[in-house]
This record gives sequence, structure tokens and C-alpha cells, in this order.
Amino acid sequence: MTSSFSSRLSGVAAGLAVVVAAWFATTSVTKADEMDDILKKGELVVAVQTQGPPVSFVDKKGERTGLAVEIAKQMAADLGVKVVFQDYDWKGLIPALLAGKADMIAGDMTPTPQRASQLLFSRPMFFNDTLAFASKDSQFKTWQDLNKEGVTVAALQGSTYADAVSKYLPKATLKVFSGGGPAVAQTLTMGRVDAMVGGQDYNSYVRQFGNLKPLEGTMTREPLAFATRPNAFHLKMWLDNYVELKTADNSLQSLLAYWWTSDAWEKDHK
Amino acid sequence: MTSSFSSRLSGVAAGLAVVVAAWFATTSVTKADEMDDILKKGELVVAVQTQGPPVSFVDKKGERTGLAVEIAKQMAADLGVKVVFQDYDWKGLIPALLAGKADMIAGDMTPTPQRASQLLFSRPMFFNDTLAFASKDSQFKTWQDLNKEGVTVAALQGSTYADAVSKYLPKATLKVFSGGGPAVAQTLTMGRVDAMVGGQDYNSYVRQFGNLKPLEGTMTREPLAFATRPNAFHLKMWLDNYVELKTADNSLQSLLAYWWTSDAWEKDHK
Amino acid sequence: MTSSFSSRLSGVAAGLAVVVAAWFATTSVTKADEMDDILKKGELVVAVQTQGPPVSFVDKKGERTGLAVEIAKQMAADLGVKVVFQDYDWKGLIPALLAGKADMIAGDMTPTPQRASQLLFSRPMFFNDTLAFASKDSQFKTWQDLNKEGVTVAALQGSTYADAVSKYLPKATLKVFSGGGPAVAQTLTMGRVDAMVGGQDYNSYVRQFGNLKPLEGTMTREPLAFATRPNAFHLKMWLDNYVELKTADNSLQSLLAYWWTSDAWEKDHK
Repeated sequence: MTSSFSSRLSGVAAGLAVVVAAWFATTSVTKADEMDDILKKGELVVAVQTQGPPVSFVDKKGERTGLAVEIAKQMAADLGVKVVFQDYDWKGLIPALLAGKADMIAGDMTPTPQRASQLLFSRPMFFNDTLAFASKDSQFKTWQDLNKEGVTVAALQGSTYADAVSKYLPKATLKVFSGGGPAVAQTLTMGRVDAMVGGQDYNSYVRQFGNLKPLEGTMTREPLAFATRPNAFHLKMWLDNYVELKTADNSLQSLLAYWWTSDAWEKDHK
Repeated sequence: MTSSFSSRLSGVAAGLAVVVAAWFATTSVTKADEMDDILKKGELVVAVQTQGPPVSFVDKKGERTGLAVEIAKQMAADLGVKVVFQDYDWKGLIPALLAGKADMIAGDMTPTPQRASQLLFSRPMFFNDTLAFASKDSQFKTWQDLNKEGVTVAALQGSTYADAVSKYLPKATLKVFSGGGPAVAQTLTMGRVDAMVGGQDYNSYVRQFGNLKPLEGTMTREPLAFATRPNAFHLKMWLDNYVELKTADNSLQSLLAYWWTSDAWEKDHK
Repeated sequence: MTSSFSSRLSGVAAGLAVVVAAWFATTSVTKADEMDDILKKGELVVAVQTQGPPVSFVDKKGERTGLAVEIAKQMAADLGVKVVFQDYDWKGLIPALLAGKADMIAGDMTPTPQRASQLLFSRPMFFNDTLAFASKDSQFKTWQDLNKEGVTVAALQGSTYADAVSKYLPKATLKVFSGGGPAVAQTLTMGRVDAMVGGQDYNSYVRQFGNLKPLEGTMTREPLAFATRPNAFHLKMWLDNYVELKTADNSLQSLLAYWWTSDAWEKDHK
């Protein structure tokens, strides 16, 4: 209960790691698993897609960083092992994991039912909220205010944001655009639509253009999780415990506030 | 992070399903598990007890539907496989699952410690709240107001509702009745007791009799979950992920609002 | 959905336990696991550190009790098996579990990343909140009020409480003391520091000294969990389900209110 006990056992546990690794090999009560392999080889191999900020990127000093990268670095540090990153393109992440080339995928992957049938996903590390935005001088306050005949709402073609407009704003008129978030935001800032729907990363366009505001409320949330192999039960449970622990002591929220829900990281890394 | 990535990988994942299924058979990194079996046979076999609305029943058009049935149908659709329902009486559900006749049980089963020693339960799909009800013109506002000498509270004989009265309203007098929820509600509407305690499904009697009201607050909650075999860890984790995902995008709450916490389903199916 | 079904199946499940245990031995769909072993031997063997109240201790009548002990007793009762306690010193708990001498550890263990690499931890059974305390007649209202130049804050040397002061109250001056919580509280009650930071168990010093008050807000939370072997997936999932169930029906909160967040237990056991 008191922290002195906790500290004491942390030390003991560190020492035990070596003993236990040896012991697993010789007893039949338990047998070596993927966590034991990570401890024995002394490294955590992490597959990432280094495409750009803020999840995984190379910063202005040439250093690998980002939200998922920093979480993975901390995990390895907490385990007392080295972290090794391997870069894959988006399509290569899952095959690399399944082929045993990496211990886990660290990124902003949605744990869809189909992916979850091939992988084990951690509890969500973070969430992508679907939000609505409008002109600062519009009368709209909440995203629900957009659900009216004659209101035009922009979203990226073929995106889940467009799906959210159809589903939650059935009375409004959806206008889809290609060319990514910037193109959608441009359309709104030029007054060609009444509002737009996008991820919380769209807040950066709001700051950039100056004349936009986010509307109140979250339309829908998309969990984003780390992943491991379908038989790596111990590692999956270890990841879930990690989320629990780092949420309780506020350290995960601090990382998210820096990397995910604000642009605080820009001054240090951009 | 953006939805375009998600959509892209959803497609990739669908394609991968076939590749992965084949691949599992030839590599030693992972081996085929129960999720892989479901993908390979192309069907999700679901044990249900089709006893009546709103969980699992045959509607006025002769179609199988209900809360648990619709969740299971959506699960199969999201996996890209066929859903196959098998009907068992209540006592037959667990033996059928354990004998491998079904992949999971979809119903309103309480994950008691004893059942959980033989099965793996998903995170709760929904909850049965224990509520208190009184006459509309009574002075009672919250369920705690009933905890007074001389107050009589009706509950179904041998039910957990009767247990809740004994435990949480020790000063009140419990009166037990047989004959199901309707009989208990009848007693209250006739003024023979001061209040009654029951599940949230008792709200339908409240609507039916007109002169009753639910009291504020929830006395206790009973989780209700789907179940799979005790070694089907991947499927259990898949179910948990499904609850997380469908809660985040509000689709589980929409289903519950239609089937479980209101009578909205009646106009379409009764 | 109604409790009559639940009650009915509880009985069935109890009867099934024996049948299932036998059945596991003869079929290939599932094979006996650690839960099955517990049911077959008819006992749940629990490793504890009986060091003192309120987690695990021997009371004034010579009876073994405490928060973790009572939870474990209830688990065994709910499974219909005998509970057997084994006493270890703090360093002996994990080795005993890994060597198969106990089925689980019941105590106030923090599920650190290193321990979680060797064990499976349950979802948190309870939490130790890190709180701040000050003199009753001070102007401090919330723990954030302490974050000012010139404010002195006492904490136990080498504890996570001292870490919390450094991390969350960077402008205040940390003063560390040895000699346990009582020594820290003594320093505050004598007016030699402006405030102290400690666990929620420090509330007992607040009551004892009379002139102290807890400040509003929780600085950080430390989860405390039960543990099992790294391959005991079913038992780990059973424990998680148990926390879910006993939280939903308020019985876990009742135990915590008696043993953990108040001194209610003292009149019966001290």
C-alpha cells in the first residue's frame, strides 16, 4: 500500500527478470512466451510507419519521434530493454508483424473487426474524435445545429467523416471533396460550404486559417490501438495493463496533450 | 490517423483474410485458432435461446430478430462471414458451446463467477438495471426514499430483485409475489404495496398501467455478456474489442436504445 | 433478462462444474486449464503478505482478515471451493506464485510494467490515491494551490509521494523525511512545513491529529491488483470479470468503503 513497498518490489522485479527467464526454460509450471523472448533478447522490436507528424516522424534535428514512437520508447525503458524501430509502409505493417519480424505495431491503427480477427489489439492508446467546424461568425454552436435542410457540410471523399455526415446529419447536404483535409478546409474558409466534418487533427487548419471554429460536441470517436500477434496473449495483456497504469498516473494524458490534442510539439520538433 | 488510411487498410485487411488463413497453416510463428476457423469455414455459429422479445425472438413477419440476434448478425457482417443461429433451451446453451457445436452464446447471460469458471465472457454487451417504481401520486422521489419503517415493497419471489430489497432497503418490508413481473406490477397498481423493485424491462408495465413512475437512481446493475469457450482467448479478445469499437462510434448505444431501454422495436416487430 | 433465469442457471452451472471437469479430460475441443484445476482440487490457494491492516492481517480475535483476504474469501465462496491462505514475505510472493505454490497473489501490489512482464495482473481491485494535506486553518483549498514559490511540502524519503511533489508541484520546495507516514504527518502538525503529500491512508493521521485537512483533488492514482501466472489466461479473465461484476452490484465498493477509504473496520477488528 505505501510506496516504499512498491519501490522495493520494483527493484526485486528488475533483479528477478534474469532469474525468471532462466527458470522458464527448466520448469513445467509455465513456459517461455513472447514477453520472455523480449526480455531474453533485451529488445522490443516495433513496426512503425514513419509518414509524418504527429504519430511517427523524423524531426528537424533528424531524430525519430512522435506520439507512437515516444510511447514505444517509454515501454522499452520501463521493461529495461532496448527499443528497435522498423519502418514499413502502411500495407507492410500487418504482414511484418504476422511474419514475426516485429513484436508489435505502434501507430494510429483503428482496431476494426477484420483486423482484430488477425491481430490482438491493445486497449485504445488514444482516440480520433470526429468533429464539426464552421465559420467563426456563423450562428452554429454544436454539431447538432448543422442537421437542418439547406445546410451544406463538406467532408473528404470516401472517408469515415463523410459517413458521419450521412449518418448523424441526415437533413444537411453532404458535399465531398478530394485532396485531403487542407482542400476541405479551404472550401470552408472560402465560404463555399456552411461547415465541414473531420478529425481532431483538422484543428490545425482552424488555427491556420484563423476564421474557423470547432463546434461543440463529439460526433463519433474512433479508437486507435497498438497491435501484436494473435497468440501473444501475455503481451496483449501487458499492453492493456500499461494503458491502465499510465492513465492512472496521468502520464499518457500528458503525452496526448503534447502530441495529439494540441500543437505543443511543433515548437520543439518542427 | 485520417480516415483514408483506415478505409484503405480495411480493404487490405479483407484481402488479407484469405492469405492469412492459408499462411497460418504453413508457419510456426502463430498457429490457427478459433478466429481462423471462423474465417476459414466462412460462418459464425451462434447459440441462442429464442424465447421472446426483446433479446431473441421471431417477429410478426416470421423473421428471427432481437437485440442479441442483431448484434451477432452485425458481427458476422463485419467479419465478412455468414451467421448461423442454433436454438437451444436455456439449460442447453452452455453444454452446446462447450461441446463445440457453436462458436459463441449470444444472449442476456449474467457472467456469474461459476459460469465464468467454465466459459470466457465478453465485456458486458449491456446491463440490466435494478430499479424501483411507485405510484405517480406518491411522495417517493428516489429509491432511497423507500428505506423507511412501514413502507412495503413488492418483488418477484426468489429473484435478485427481492435480494436487492433485503440488501439495500433493510428498513422497508419486502413482500414477495409469484407469477412474474406483470403480477408484481398489478399488485402495485392496485395499491396493495407502496412500491416495487424490478428490472428496467418493468418500465413496460409502467407505460401499460399509466399510474406508475420509476424512482430516480439505479439500485444495482447486472452485466449481461456473450460467451465463448474457455480456451478461445482470441475470440474473447475480439469480442471485447468489438464492444469498445461499437461503443466509441455510438452504434451499440443506438441498438440498445431501440431494443433494450425503450419499446421502439414494438412498432416494427410486434 | 429476468433474475429467475439467472438463478436457474446459477444452479445448473454449479451442477455442471463436476460434469465439465470430467468432460475436459476426455474431449479435444478444450483442455483442462488452471480454473479447472482449482475446481477439481476444490480449493483456491492464495498467497498473501500478512503484515498489518487494512489489507491482510490477524485481528484482535486472532482471525485472518483484511481487504485482500475478504475479497479472496468471497471469490472462493462464489466458486464453491475452499480458500487456503499461504503467508510469504513481500519478496517471496512472486517466486511462490511462479513456482506454482499458489494460484494467485491477493494484496496491494502495483502492476508495474516489469512485474507485468512476469505475471498477469487483474484489472485494478482498488487504487491508492496520492493526496495533499495541510493545516485546517491554512488558505490552501486544492493540491494545485501548493504549487507556489516558498511553499514547503513534506513527503516520505524515496517514495512515489516525493516523486509526485517534484513532478506536479515544481514551484514548491520538497522536504523529505524518513520514519514513515506518522513522522511526515508529525512534521506537518507541528507547523514545520506548509503541507504534506501521501496516500489516502494518510487520512488516518488527519483524523488522529485533528488539526489537519485533506486538500481537494487527486494528484495521481496508483492501481493495485491481484496477480496470477503468466500463462493463466482463463484465471486472469475470470478475475477481470469478477471486478466487473462486483463493481456493477456495488459489493466491491462496499468492501472498499469499509476497509480502504475509511476506518470503519477498526471498531470490529482493532
